[in-house]
Amino acid sequence: MKIKFEPIGVIHSPFKKKEDIESKKYADPKGFDSVHGELEIFKEYEDGLKDIEGFSHLVVLFAFHKSEGYKLHTKPLLEDTLRGVFSTRSPNRPNPIGMTVVNVIERKGNHLKVSGIDMIEGTPILDIKPYTSRDQKSPIKLGWLENRMKKT
Amino acid sequence: MKIKFEPIGVIHSPFKKKEDIESKKYADPKGFDSVHGELEIFKEYEDGLKDIEGFSHLVVLFAFHKSEGYKLHTKPLLEDTLRGVFSTRSPNRPNPIGMTVVNVIERKGNHLKVSGIDMIEGTPILDIKPYTSRDQKSPIKLGWLENRMKKT
Repeated sequence: MKIKFEPIGVIHSPFKKKEDIESKKYADPKGFDSVHGELEIFKEYEDGLKDIEGFSHLVVLFAFHKSEGYKLHTKPLLEDTLRGVFSTRSPNRPNPIGMTVVNVIERKGNHLKVSGIDMIEGTPILDIKPYTSRDQKSPIKLGWLENRMKKT
Repeated sequence: MKIKFEPIGVIHSPFKKKEDIESKKYADPKGFDSVHGELEIFKEYEDGLKDIEGFSHLVVLFAFHKSEGYKLHTKPLLEDTLRGVFSTRSPNRPNPIGMTVVNVIERKGNHLKVSGIDMIEGTPILDIKPYTSRDQKSPIKLGWLENRMKKT
């Protein structure tokens, strides 16, 4: 069964290529909080943005369009141990879909200025949704990432 | 540009059809926390689950396979006001992809017992990812949903 989607917009980012993101700075999970960018929603979908200014955060689903295949065991960025791909946020996964929660700064028509960008310029947007209290989980256990948090 | 995905698994849920979910009980966003179900990841992807037991919560991306078209302005469940579809979590959206954060209870091979299920039986899973501290946002503003929270 093939499931087909079409982009509803495109991400504008200070990161122009994959290598711009794969830096030690961004191993710190909060490193992206200050990265600003824009979600451009195509004009034909602009009406769907009604009421969106009221939300402080949005869930952005997007295609890892520069992903080239995957392995079920993968080494996360800056790590030496192989992990199951579903235990990582690697862009190289069976279905290369990304999920990032961004902070809405301002809406201008079909453009949303946001912070928290960790995607590259030109990334196709598949969906945006309001981030709600159901998405706030606490406390959480972070598995192999716990060690990483201690290191940074 | 068409972007194609194939399911990596299927959701087992106590909700057998859409109408089972559209109940007033679940208007309370915490209403699903106690709903248990299972993520069955197809055998061919089982190796990708390595290390997943260490995480308490997973982001599940799935196809709203019973979605039938969309409108850019839509009335959320139990609401009377039209909202922009991207300001809602409606299954009827341009790209019918759902995102739910579930709590991992137990892994048995390629089956993950979880709570927080708000999908129906047979929902195709597109991806699972660890929920990390970057996904925890606080404080948040909930736009039109603020009123709903006060009502429930």
